[in-house]
Amino acid sequence: MRNTLDIEYRVMYHDADMTGRLSIPALGNYVLDAAGLHAIELGVSMQQLASQGMTWVMSGMRYQLHLMPPINSTVQVHTQISEVSRISSKRDFIITCGGQPVAEISTEWLIINTRTRRPVFISEAAPGIESMKSADTGIPKYRHIRTAPKEASACRKTTIQYSDIDINSHLYSIRYLAMALDTLDPEVLKNGSIRAIDVNFVQEVMPGDTVELAWETSGQETLVEMRGDGKVKFRAIIETSQMEC
Amino acid sequence: MRNTLDIEYRVMYHDADMTGRLSIPALGNYVLDAAGLHAIELGVSMQQLASQGMTWVMSGMRYQLHLMPPINSTVQVHTQISEVSRISSKRDFIITCGGQPVAEISTEWLIINTRTRRPVFISEAAPGIESMKSADTGIPKYRHIRTAPKEASACRKTTIQYSDIDINSHLYSIRYLAMALDTLDPEVLKNGSIRAIDVNFVQEVMPGDTVELAWETSGQETLVEMRGDGKVKFRAIIETSQMEC
Repeated sequence: MRNTLDIEYRVMYHDADMTGRLSIPALGNYVLDAAGLHAIELGVSMQQLASQGMTWVMSGMRYQLHLMPPINSTVQVHTQISEVSRISSKRDFIITCGGQPVAEISTEWLIINTRTRRPVFISEAAPGIESMKSADTGIPKYRHIRTAPKEASACRKTTIQYSDIDINSHLYSIRYLAMALDTLDPEVLKNGSIRAIDVNFVQEVMPGDTVELAWETSGQETLVEMRGDGKVKFRAIIETSQMEC
Repeated sequence: MRNTLDIEYRVMYHDADMTGRLSIPALGNYVLDAAGLHAIELGVSMQQLASQGMTWVMSGMRYQLHLMPPINSTVQVHTQISEVSRISSKRDFIITCGGQPVAEISTEWLIINTRTRRPVFISEAAPGIESMKSADTGIPKYRHIRTAPKEASACRKTTIQYSDIDINSHLYSIRYLAMALDTLDPEVLKNGSIRAIDVNFVQEVMPGDTVELAWETSGQETLVEMRGDGKVKFRAIIETSQMEC
């Protein structure tokens, strides 16, 4: 049992977007996969929790993005648990490619009861997790987003399909993020100028649900909100800068 | 340079659907990635064609599906070129997991001029490809689908987003397939009863395009068509059987 996990991913064909470089959602896939593998090693895997009627859900993410590597590159992902509180734990990731920084990502997780869908105490559901944490990486943690796009902002409706859901039969966390990125000007996506993203997962979304995405851009920031049945499901703030590389 | 390529993929967290097993689209991602790696070895990669103003596009696929492996399994993918004609080549894949059959997939490819979007002669664009082929695997090749869903069939509109496109800046072939699977009854997707799929890629679809998916189920077959601007873009026939495993 190691308190940290280091693993490599090759940027596969489908992990690249139209720039020929690793896409932000594919990077998200890597880190969630690495988190799952580390949880297995630590004895707190989704599979083990499932046998007790519980599962991990993510409440937030913070991405800091540098230069995405091209297709067929190998990226190195380092992950560790950095914080543990009564009902949440924070897991950080440092992603590099040949020693060059690709991204830093911090995530926050809850354990929920799969019947009530309510959080349970981490210390009871995953005993000993406190001893599995490492010294904090110092990577910025995600922000709680307290603002909503204005009434008159752009919006789009979408219905959640089979291809949007994950092993927990609800909207896959990285699909929320991909839907948020889909609201951006294609030029922003093309020139690799996204520098940071804060993501708040507020409520589960189920297959068949119709949700509305609303967004507004102000300066270098785009605020995106997903809502359904009059409730906020998800928010993200995407920060861009002038292209450097 | 090997006339065949054998490569392994671990079923990552995001490669599984709600069944906890490899999804059909994720299997499609693996085989396209393997095709790309083999093309690099053979000197006919997309990157090399791009420098001459050309690219590979897929015109069809045939899937035969057995038992999908669970998350974190390792699958073995064998691939080879089985046929070469004037304007197309066929590439086959045999996918197994620990010696057990997972799937057989046959694909057909064209090389197009990236400016005119028209096919070019394979022998001119990829000289020597004839010598790279292997004895046919005998895997069934894809069928041309000549029928359309009836006027009154179910349908759904969707607009192609950033998260749907690939390195060629058009709708990613596996996203057409995922959209076709999204039309099925969730129970069919849950019980793993899909036995075969024929896929015809008829026309490119670009980001921002709004397309209509129409479908109808008759007995064990579902016929799906994607159309836009009055033209057929894609067709698929998905065959199911009673669940065996």
